[in-house]
Amino acid sequence: MSRRNVYLDLIPPRQAVQRACDALNRKELVQTETIPTHEAAGRTLATSVTARCSSPTFHSAAMDGVAVRAADTFAAREDAPLELQKGRDYDPVNTGNPLPEGRDAVIMIENVLQVDDSTIRIEAPAFPWNHVRRIGEDIVATELLLPQGRVLSAYDVGALLAAGIWEIQVLERLRMTFIPTGDEVLDFSQRPTPQPGQVIESNSQVFASLARSWNAIPSRTATIPDDAAALTQAVRDALASDAHIVVVGAGSSAGSRDYTKAVFEQVGTLLCHGINVMPGKPTLLAEAQGKLLVGAPGYPVSAVICFEDVLAPIAAYLSRRDAPQRRSLPVQLIRRTPSRLGQEEVVRLAVGEVRGRFLAAPLSRGAGMITTLTEAQAVTRIPTSVDGVEAGKTVTAELLVPEAELSRVLIHVGSHDNTLDLLADALMGLEVPLRLTSSHVGSMGGLTAVKNGTALFAGAHLFDPETRDFNFPFLRRYLPNLAVQVVNLAIRHQGLIVPRGNPKGIQGVSDLTRKDIRFINRQRGAGTRILLDHHLEVEGVDFEQVRGYEHEEFTHMAVAVNVLTGAADCGLGIRAAAEALDLDFVPLARERYDLIFPAEHAEDFRLQALLALIGTEAFKQRINNLGGYETTLTGQTMHPGQGLE
Amino acid sequence: MSRRNVYLDLIPPRQAVQRACDALNRKELVQTETIPTHEAAGRTLATSVTARCSSPTFHSAAMDGVAVRAADTFAAREDAPLELQKGRDYDPVNTGNPLPEGRDAVIMIENVLQVDDSTIRIEAPAFPWNHVRRIGEDIVATELLLPQGRVLSAYDVGALLAAGIWEIQVLERLRMTFIPTGDEVLDFSQRPTPQPGQVIESNSQVFASLARSWNAIPSRTATIPDDAAALTQAVRDALASDAHIVVVGAGSSAGSRDYTKAVFEQVGTLLCHGINVMPGKPTLLAEAQGKLLVGAPGYPVSAVICFEDVLAPIAAYLSRRDAPQRRSLPVQLIRRTPSRLGQEEVVRLAVGEVRGRFLAAPLSRGAGMITTLTEAQAVTRIPTSVDGVEAGKTVTAELLVPEAELSRVLIHVGSHDNTLDLLADALMGLEVPLRLTSSHVGSMGGLTAVKNGTALFAGAHLFDPETRDFNFPFLRRYLPNLAVQVVNLAIRHQGLIVPRGNPKGIQGVSDLTRKDIRFINRQRGAGTRILLDHHLEVEGVDFEQVRGYEHEEFTHMAVAVNVLTGAADCGLGIRAAAEALDLDFVPLARERYDLIFPAEHAEDFRLQALLALIGTEAFKQRINNLGGYETTLTGQTMHPGQGLE
Repeated sequence: MSRRNVYLDLIPPRQAVQRACDALNRKELVQTETIPTHEAAGRTLATSVTARCSSPTFHSAAMDGVAVRAADTFAAREDAPLELQKGRDYDPVNTGNPLPEGRDAVIMIENVLQVDDSTIRIEAPAFPWNHVRRIGEDIVATELLLPQGRVLSAYDVGALLAAGIWEIQVLERLRMTFIPTGDEVLDFSQRPTPQPGQVIESNSQVFASLARSWNAIPSRTATIPDDAAALTQAVRDALASDAHIVVVGAGSSAGSRDYTKAVFEQVGTLLCHGINVMPGKPTLLAEAQGKLLVGAPGYPVSAVICFEDVLAPIAAYLSRRDAPQRRSLPVQLIRRTPSRLGQEEVVRLAVGEVRGRFLAAPLSRGAGMITTLTEAQAVTRIPTSVDGVEAGKTVTAELLVPEAELSRVLIHVGSHDNTLDLLADALMGLEVPLRLTSSHVGSMGGLTAVKNGTALFAGAHLFDPETRDFNFPFLRRYLPNLAVQVVNLAIRHQGLIVPRGNPKGIQGVSDLTRKDIRFINRQRGAGTRILLDHHLEVEGVDFEQVRGYEHEEFTHMAVAVNVLTGAADCGLGIRAAAEALDLDFVPLARERYDLIFPAEHAEDFRLQALLALIGTEAFKQRINNLGGYETTLTGQTMHPGQGLE
Repeated sequence: MSRRNVYLDLIPPRQAVQRACDALNRKELVQTETIPTHEAAGRTLATSVTARCSSPTFHSAAMDGVAVRAADTFAAREDAPLELQKGRDYDPVNTGNPLPEGRDAVIMIENVLQVDDSTIRIEAPAFPWNHVRRIGEDIVATELLLPQGRVLSAYDVGALLAAGIWEIQVLERLRMTFIPTGDEVLDFSQRPTPQPGQVIESNSQVFASLARSWNAIPSRTATIPDDAAALTQAVRDALASDAHIVVVGAGSSAGSRDYTKAVFEQVGTLLCHGINVMPGKPTLLAEAQGKLLVGAPGYPVSAVICFEDVLAPIAAYLSRRDAPQRRSLPVQLIRRTPSRLGQEEVVRLAVGEVRGRFLAAPLSRGAGMITTLTEAQAVTRIPTSVDGVEAGKTVTAELLVPEAELSRVLIHVGSHDNTLDLLADALMGLEVPLRLTSSHVGSMGGLTAVKNGTALFAGAHLFDPETRDFNFPFLRRYLPNLAVQVVNLAIRHQGLIVPRGNPKGIQGVSDLTRKDIRFINRQRGAGTRILLDHHLEVEGVDFEQVRGYEHEEFTHMAVAVNVLTGAADCGLGIRAAAEALDLDFVPLARERYDLIFPAEHAEDFRLQALLALIGTEAFKQRINNLGGYETTLTGQTMHPGQGLE
């Protein structure tokens, strides 16, 4: 901690981009080259291009038919047809044929009556230049065809070739080299098996893939250890190469092994140290020898945002093209999304279409979680001026995927259960893979979401002690006017999750008041919490006596992890969670975990696919393999009063 | 004309696509291959992928700071700080470091006070797993990572490498081979100089460029002459190659040399002969040996629509991805756009932004004009159910370019002048190229467009005989409430355009009544037509005596082309048009051609760039080089009553 960097000043990405564009001379940095026209799509024209040939180079027939001299046909009338002789009065022509000498019009084949092999009859006159493509109709030689700076389309390639332009001068493709750094970093190309403390370097390949998508040429150096001298040498070597952009992976933060800033200051001029966006904050920019130096954060999501918000717009400027723009869409947030005031936050979203509207569930915010990007359909930006966005608000989502994909996402809100992960997996294995996005806000939260139309369906396991029925009493009470279908997913075993061997000998909820037992609870509204409260009441236990009652987790697995890691001595949860982590389990109750579908979604192809799936024996078998479940009701439509039968 | 094909039945493109998808077995046709993960972005996963390693593989610090055992810190309070000893109580950690044995939390460096080299002070307790990334937080080994059918993103590449997946099974890239046909067709790679009757083959390269943009591998065969046997052999050879898709260029129409249909019927099963879209109608589809055969129209725009509306969706189906979707936008048509009832028409549009709205000028409809695609920013589809769309109506435009480009298009409506082409060329040569789109509807049409807000600016040369002033009297009369700035573009010479040598000895408008003279007129509302009428009146000539008075063209150049080709003996137009085609010119009048800018656009950067440009000596020199112009007023703001001074 002796040598620590301090962030200079956090600036908005736009300003970082501007500083880099101002500091770089793109005309000096990016040279031009001459390439064959037919390989030029996607390249940027370095100079404007004038046509060498006209197109067409001759008057030609624009239709299949006969070529005539218009003046010869002026007398033709419906009531006074005119007969024309082949060779003398007309010549057959196909589309594209040059107009024979002396002809100045074409009569469409549909308007010609063939009398014999060499005679036709027409009933209307032709006008001069009727159905004739005149010289230069498309392209006129010597005229400007395409301006400098144009990013060539496939159409442009056609126009250039038609104009007789075989080679063109374009900007060279940008070359970007990536220097991976870090003692702990493993080279993916060695196919390593990471040991504790080691990570597989993959950001270089994410950058390379992104770079290729905008037509740049990526490369990568050997991995550099955490050593200032070695990094300085590597950056100098990269600057001496033909790369326009040198990226140093990781080491751009403010940790004691973060040398990138010092190295950049040594070899060039620092332009920016830190952007006020999370993730992505530790982004460094510098200029050296007219080239761009980028210090990219080590966390994968931060690195991606560094690339997309900062590097990509600079690269667009250098290659004289418009910065890539994502399609954007208004979406309704189904959960509150907190953020820090004064800092923009890029939040990954699972977005699913529900009856023409788009619902968005914010995904985990961890900058280290690349899967939040692979699972997201979009991102939204929470501006610096607010400290979060409330559930139900509409925000602008920038799509990461084609819009069509949003109709293949199922938004589930409700209670957590391990069978949902199994369901998600099975849905992705369908011929048309469906993506299940689950927001775990408890059973009551699921009912509320269904009521508000902020979920396609809900999962709930609400036990009503009075009727000994599941879910229906709550639906009657809270959603009296909503027609729903209730289908069982599984019967599951709830109980106390305890460490392997149950070292504290916990036997039931009455043990929870013991001073040596730290409990971990579920959040308010969770069916499991309601179940706990019911059992505490049955046993006459005061919840205020339970140590840790106020510590809440949102999933069974999170409860189990607390027990596994010793953060708590026990928690209430499903047997499957205990078994997944090889913990012990003290059974307390069996309960029904049901899926609740609003009747208005009955025709939804995604729900139909889901229902078909959970009815299969194969799926039931997978549930049974988890342990702690019964599948006697799985896939069946439930009825009020049915209970566990 | 003896052997002609007949279109089977014209079907909508969607139906053509469906027939092909139904006829092809994509699982048989498109094989899988194993490739390195880091090169896999953009490829389609053939099988689902489960993670091999967890990520992280160890508990690690999520922040720079110190690792502690949370329990050791519980006593720390602001008013009772706790001192911790390095090694015994804490270890310094950087983000990503493994948590040392026995530690279960990280305190951020910002919350640590360094007392001496081995002592720190904290004022708040740490909770277990605070700022710790736990094992498998991102990726859990053995869990499903990505589903089959996934089109891999750059992010996916990162996730796969992080999960220890070095190789993956993907669908092979589609291979498409193109067979150019036609006796008149020249191979671009020979760098030919086309003679009359010959055209440079470029569609193969437009297809190749489009195919590469969706990750397919294009190839091309030698050009095949118009010979059924040769084409049959070429198609058989292509079917025997490794191509999944065989495209025959041209010859798919119904002309006597169009063999493609017959060949497809001979080697396979015809699926579709003709789609009811213009351009693009002569599109053929067939299946042979499990492969797709495509007969692509010869006209370049037709070929593009065949590719994009038919071939691309089929290819998307084969490679299991979503068909490419263009961004769409509502735009207001500034001209009526006719179309044929019962046939969808794809109209290319020049689209420009005017104060937050988007105006669209339909471009020429010719299927042979590739430049209508290179000049267009968008296309719109006029459905089969209507016979056109009125001016002022809003239609949906599918963008061909990034949206940002629309703010660099200037929509001009008004009179035609050759200096506008020069202006367009010069605007495209600017550092930020601006595209000028001119709708030639005459001076009065320009005034109307400015009044209705359907143009950024107008060009007009309206002469008022009473005041002998230009434009202002008309502005006063028709746009009394609109504040405008009027800037002169040039003074130009109008007169009678006659063939070289003036063979009929035309001296003035009084000659126009001669029986041996065919006149070509300009459209109603054109300033030039008003000028003609004025001179006819002055000379006492009855317009009904002028042969051809009712034949209208829309531009000076069109009038000149009529004279050049002998379609007319003379027409009224500017000297520059006559000189451009080496015709003779009988002067009649000098007039002011002005640009009229609504004052509300004064701040528009495009108009500012335009005004700066026309004020330069270089631009005036270019006007003078045209001949028939004076530039004494060019770039100056005009005032009422100024006339030609």
